[in-house]
Formats: sequence, C-alpha cells, structure tokens
Amino acid sequence: MTEQATRKVTMDKLVSLCKRRGYIFPSSEIYGGMGACYDYGPLGVELKNNVKACWWRSVVQERDDMVGLDASILMHPQTWVASGHVDGFADPLVDCKQCRKRWRSDNIAGEKCPECGGDLTEPRMFNLMFKTHVGAVEDEAAVVYLRPETAQGIFVNFENVLSSTRRKLPFGIAQIGKAFRNEITTGNFIFRMREFEQMEVEYFVVPGSDEEWFRTWVDERVKWYTDLGISRENLRLVQHGVDELAHYAKSCTDIEYLFPMGWSELEGIANRTDFDLKQHAGHSGKDISYYDEDTKEHIVPYVIEPSAGVDRSVLAFLVDAYDEEPDKDEIRVVLRLHPDLAPVKVAILPLSRNEKLLPLSQDIYNNLRRCWMVQYDNAQSIGRRYRRYDEIGTPFCVTIDFDSLEDNAVTIRERDGMKQIRVPIAELKATLDAKLCGQPFEVLPPGGKKWLGFEE
Amino acid sequence: MTEQATRKVTMDKLVSLCKRRGYIFPSSEIYGGMGACYDYGPLGVELKNNVKACWWRSVVQERDDMVGLDASILMHPQTWVASGHVDGFADPLVDCKQCRKRWRSDNIAGEKCPECGGDLTEPRMFNLMFKTHVGAVEDEAAVVYLRPETAQGIFVNFENVLSSTRRKLPFGIAQIGKAFRNEITTGNFIFRMREFEQMEVEYFVVPGSDEEWFRTWVDERVKWYTDLGISRENLRLVQHGVDELAHYAKSCTDIEYLFPMGWSELEGIANRTDFDLKQHAGHSGKDISYYDEDTKEHIVPYVIEPSAGVDRSVLAFLVDAYDEEPDKDEIRVVLRLHPDLAPVKVAILPLSRNEKLLPLSQDIYNNLRRCWMVQYDNAQSIGRRYRRYDEIGTPFCVTIDFDSLEDNAVTIRERDGMKQIRVPIAELKATLDAKLCGQPFEVLPPGGKKWLGFEE
Repeated sequence: MTEQATRKVTMDKLVSLCKRRGYIFPSSEIYGGMGACYDYGPLGVELKNNVKACWWRSVVQERDDMVGLDASILMHPQTWVASGHVDGFADPLVDCKQCRKRWRSDNIAGEKCPECGGDLTEPRMFNLMFKTHVGAVEDEAAVVYLRPETAQGIFVNFENVLSSTRRKLPFGIAQIGKAFRNEITTGNFIFRMREFEQMEVEYFVVPGSDEEWFRTWVDERVKWYTDLGISRENLRLVQHGVDELAHYAKSCTDIEYLFPMGWSELEGIANRTDFDLKQHAGHSGKDISYYDEDTKEHIVPYVIEPSAGVDRSVLAFLVDAYDEEPDKDEIRVVLRLHPDLAPVKVAILPLSRNEKLLPLSQDIYNNLRRCWMVQYDNAQSIGRRYRRYDEIGTPFCVTIDFDSLEDNAVTIRERDGMKQIRVPIAELKATLDAKLCGQPFEVLPPGGKKWLGFEE
Repeated sequence: MTEQATRKVTMDKLVSLCKRRGYIFPSSEIYGGMGACYDYGPLGVELKNNVKACWWRSVVQERDDMVGLDASILMHPQTWVASGHVDGFADPLVDCKQCRKRWRSDNIAGEKCPECGGDLTEPRMFNLMFKTHVGAVEDEAAVVYLRPETAQGIFVNFENVLSSTRRKLPFGIAQIGKAFRNEITTGNFIFRMREFEQMEVEYFVVPGSDEEWFRTWVDERVKWYTDLGISRENLRLVQHGVDELAHYAKSCTDIEYLFPMGWSELEGIANRTDFDLKQHAGHSGKDISYYDEDTKEHIVPYVIEPSAGVDRSVLAFLVDAYDEEPDKDEIRVVLRLHPDLAPVKVAILPLSRNEKLLPLSQDIYNNLRRCWMVQYDNAQSIGRRYRRYDEIGTPFCVTIDFDSLEDNAVTIRERDGMKQIRVPIAELKATLDAKLCGQPFEVLPPGGKKWLGFEE
C-alpha cells in the first residue's frame, strides 16, 4: 500500500475522466449496463488502436522472424477438446445457502459466506467458455464456443502458415483479437472483463533452445512497455511456482503492473512446450510438425507465448500517464501519454473566434490532419482549452494568433513542460514531425515522465 | 454473364491463390473446417488491416465531422428488443419431409424440395442471432446475443458521445467490429460468413436534411472504392424498392460489385430516420436527443448509415486486382492492389545468395522496414522471386546486385509495368516514399489498372 501512497491516480478518478472525456463508457449504459463489458469512446478507440498498432509494429513489422494472423472467434469445437479447455477450463463455485450469493471457492478462505456468514454448498466446477449453437435448430445444432484465448487459432493454422510462408525455425505468429470468458469474479474497470482483447505471440523454437528464447521474450516485452513510457518501477516480474502452472506450461513469468488496486498481471510469458501442437496432431489425425532441411528430421517445435491483454495495457498506460500538478489555484490534470499512443496528436487552437483567424487556422488544420489525428477547437478561453488537451493527453497545441497573420508563424505549446516556441508555418509540419516521430521518450523519475520537448 | 466473360479471375483461382500464398485459410481446417468461417493468414491480415485503416482515415481522420467508437460485441439484451431484432430478425425456414434438407422458403420457388422433390413443411421463423448465457448456471443466467450488427453499439452510446465530445449536428460516429449471424445459406468464400466484420458510419443530421446527406454519402462511398482502385464499371448502385426496405429504413441504396458469382451487395447506405434513437429512448426511459442551442429545441436526429463489409471489401479488392498476362511461355499472375492496400510494400531481393551481397542487402532491409511492411527474400532465381511478389501484389522490388557494391545504387522494379530504374541508395527511401504515398492511382481501362510508375 505504501508503494501507491505517492501516486496521484485512483481508479475512481480515472473512471470519471474516461467517461467525461470519451475514453471509456460502461457498455449498454442506458439499459443499466452489461456486466463487465465496456465500450471505447472516441478517444478510447484511438488509444486502443494505437496500442495495437505499436504492438504489431514491434512484434511483426520490425522483426524478420514474425508473421501475423487473424483467425475467427468461432472455431471447430474439437479445438477446445484438444486444447484441454472443454475438460479443464473451469472454476470451482460455491453458493451461500443463506443469501444465495455465488463465490469462487478458491478465492475465499473458510467454509462460511464472506457476505453473510451462511453455510456454503460443496464446490461445483463451472466451465468459463461461452457456448452457442450453429445451425437452424438449437437442439440439433452443433455447440460451438466463443474462443477463451486467441492462441489456438494460431496452433490450428501452424501448417497453413508454414506452407504459405516457408519460414524456418525459430519464427513466430502474432495475433490480436477478441476472447471471451464467462468470469464469475469481474471488476476493476477494464481489468477483468467478460469480453476482452488479446495480443498474443506464439514463437516456435527448436526444443532445447526454448529456455533461452523464454528469457529473451520476457526482456523484449518489458522493454516494449517501458519504451512506451511505463515506469520500470511500476513493473515487476513474477515467476509461477510449479503448482501454479497451467496444464500446458513448463514455466511462466507474469509481467505485473502496479495498478490502483495493487500489483496485477499485465502480460504472461509462458513456455507452452510442444503440448498444443501435439494435442492438435493427435485429435485431428494430421501431421503437425516442422521439417528440418539440414537434419532431415521432423520436429514438433516448442512454443514460447508472450500473451498480453489489450485492455489491461490500455489501463496501465492510462494509469501510468495520469498526473496532477498545482497550477495557480487549480490542479492541472495531465495525461502524459507517449506521443505514439496519444489519441489526438495535435490540437489547432485559434486564439479567439474572431473571423480573421478562421481561414489560416482551418488551412493549417486541413493540412495537418492528412498526417495525424488532429482536432480543431475554438471554444472557450485558450487557457481552458490547454487544460482540456492536457487532460486527454494531446502532446502539442498549435495556437494561431493575430500576429500569425503578419509574421506567418504560430506557437507550439508542449503538454508536459508547457514550454512554447514560435515556429514559421512553413516549418510547422517538419517541426511536429520531428517531435512526434523522431524523439526518444525520456523517463525522468521522480518528477514523472517527460519526453524530450524543446531544447532550451 | 457476358459482363464477366472478359475477366480473368474466377473464385476458384482466387481461393487457391489465397490459401497458397497465405491470404485466407478455411477456419479450423485441420478439423474439417468451421462452417462459413475463414481465417486471415499472414498476407490477409495485413490486407484486411490496410482496408480498415484506409476506411478509418477516410471517414474519421480526414473529416472534421466524425468521431470513432468501439463498442463491445456482448450488449444488454434489451438492445435487441428495442432495435426490433428479437422479434423481426428472422428467416422463414422449411424442411424437406423426405431428405430432411433445410431451406430458406423465400429462396426457393414452389412447394417441393429443390434437391429431391419431396414435400416441404410449413415455414417456421428462425432468428439469426446467436444466443449465449452470461452467469454461472445456464438456466438461471441472462440470455445475451452476439451482436448481429455493430450499429446498435453506436445508438446506445449516442448521449455518451454527445456529452463527451460536444459535437454539433451534422456529425457522425464510425465503428469497425465483428458481427455474427447464424445464416442458413452461406458461401461464396468470404462473401457470406457467419462471423464477419463491419465498417459502419451512423451520421446524425437535422431531419429534413437527410435526403441530401443520403445522396452525399452514396457518392462519398463510391469514391472511396474507386480511389482505392476498384474499376467504376464493376460497381453499380441499386435502390431498394419500398417493399424491400428493412423495418427501420426510409430508403436504401446498395453499392453492388461484380463479384465472380455476379452482382452482389458490397455496401448498403440506408436512411434509418429517427427509428433507432426513438426506440432506445422508449425502451430505456432515457432522453435521447440533441439540444439545438440556436433554436432552443430538442431534436431527435435522422441517421444516414453507410454500412460496409470488411470481408466483402477485401474480396472485392482482391477480385478487382487479379490479373493475368502472357509472359514468354508462362502466365504472369499479378495482383494489382493499390499500394495503400498491398500487404508487403517492398521486397528486398539480393541478386544471389552470394555472401558479398548480404551486409548491404540486410542493411537496406533493416532500414526500410522501420517505414513499411517489407520482406527480405534470397531464395530461388530473381525471375521467380519477381513472379512471387507480383502474385501477392507487392508494388516494388529492390534488387541488390554486384554493381551495387561499387556504385552504391540499386534497382527498383515496379510490379505493374515491370519497368526498372536505377536509384542511388541514398535516394532509395525518398524515391519509394514518393511512389508509395504521393502518387495518384490512375485507372487505365481496358488494359487493367495501373498506378503511376516511373516517368519515361
């Protein structure tokens, strides 16, 4: 608890900001909400898309050993028999005989209801997969599941990817997509939802090289978060004990983040061995292996799986970016999001609504929005507008004033340090380009994070 | 049929290319496939992401009257009562009493089974929404649906978007996401799937201005397809008759594309009036309206909805791009994809595997892949490699030869015209930049499509 005492963010503040500014809304709110589902608003969808794009760029585009995939949510039900989910993906549940409340028995201590102290039933296993039926009549139709993880879409396509891309070991397949779990215990905003999005890599290696690749991927993934501005001291690695491992895993390390509710899993890196490929080979009767041209052997590769939550990453980036600082009589709220993640990169702010400023301001706006997500705003005072763009994490405001009509220059105002520079309009795009794309993100504890602004 | 006689593409050729090159695989293929679902392979996921990014850029980033949204697939079930889907989203089905085969009665003529000539049962209405249960025990839990359209996620969030963004009419909300329909009649590859992806705009306008905005959006959307290389003669507009309109629509125009199986819907633009907002206001008991500051009135806006299929767009772009031309004794297959859509923008091809070429080739590869999706390939002869990249639609190949080590220049070879130019390595990035980003896409019928290559 002491670790969080110095942080200015609380979950309540964040939830409130997210709703007010259009980051995240409760799903189906007008109908009282849809349990443990959330909708991403105008800013949230940009942030989430930026997180996904940064991940894809990092694990696919900038590597020479990776390809992407996008498998469907509905898969052949045999997939989940082979993977072990039909038999094993279940939580033990108990009901309180007195107040009827339902609990995960592995989450409560003792034999009495934590709510009312009543007696509990014996635990029953409850499968977390959502079921539905494909075909015209329910009782005749095939039961199918909403995938509880994206990983299996990669394993069942292993041979298809291999034959179409002719990859050599080691290589990986990356995928981003929705997964669904009928969780009993949900909560902490978008941390644990019933519908969520995963970013998973399945990295196939020669058996024997798996432990080294496991360590490499743990390092890679930590670096991804810190490169995008997460403070290293808010991340920690937790290795699963042998008794905590999933049935398919030889080892697993969680990257935990210090969320407002405490340290919780942000991403898991698992050594899934050859379990999944062998299971699918066995259940499908197909040969699923890799032919090594040098040794003339067929190998079933081992798999290292860095599995991240998109929504949890969004939450961690928001939490880590949230800052407050005194500003005259007020509190300035700033989301210090990395420029690559910020939903709106530049705000175009004519100093006033005076008509003379309109043509030039609109011209700058129309030009810049071809390059980036840009907003135009001429409502309220310039000070209030700066505060608004600070609060949604916009790294730069461009202010057009009456001098601009004379000197063909505008003011760029930087979110983090609030420094301002005057730039000729002809150099505006190039200046922003360098600031938005070319600058490293510099972490300066303990005064919060700053990326390089203008040189003094 | 005559219209298609001159086209070189058939569905069979395309399905085969897609599987062989890693564009699209049948879902869960090792288990015999998952009916009417497909998985996007390494190239397919890039093409699909490019289609979505181009759409988002066009309808959100480059407009000043639009914002985005990403609502969850699982919504409060009351949503679908209000929208009319629980009561009305159904097909009439009949069974053959003899062979047990099931048919949509509105798809067959007469009272006999088209397969065996047996008698048919009376039609029964069958709802197309997939159902599942949220909560621990099936019979106690709430029935929820997989959304059959993304649109309702926008309507239920109308007030949240309005209050967080303070938009003025007219404005629109754009969304991309999965939708699910338990279709009885599926097929034509990725044209009609049970799991598919939509790109929808709900554009809110002052009642009375809806008909003009309807026409504007039809034009906008046609232009989007042709800007990205679809031949205008393969698109046609079909206006729905009054008896064909959905229950919520005042008018609807389909943009049809000449697919290999014939003219079929690519996108529908509907005037949904104020039906949905009023239905949700009525069912939720909430005020859902727009306050007009000038007239001091509360308005329920009319809605124009351009609703496109992501998968159908992908299919249309592939079909339209497919070309064959004689080349010596062979047939050269070329996917003439617009550069913005091409999965791999540039292939880096050392002339041979000779070690001397390796450092320079890798250096160029490592630099360029920071900018674009780039592949490195040193297998097989240069001619075969050109063919491979033609077939997957890569607009440029960069060849590094032994002269490159002396003159610090490389050859850029263009996909469509197969022209080659020699470029100093120092100018390579800028040259590709101009070709990939700065050039208009020029349609030159009847010799197929060409985008501007090198000036002679």
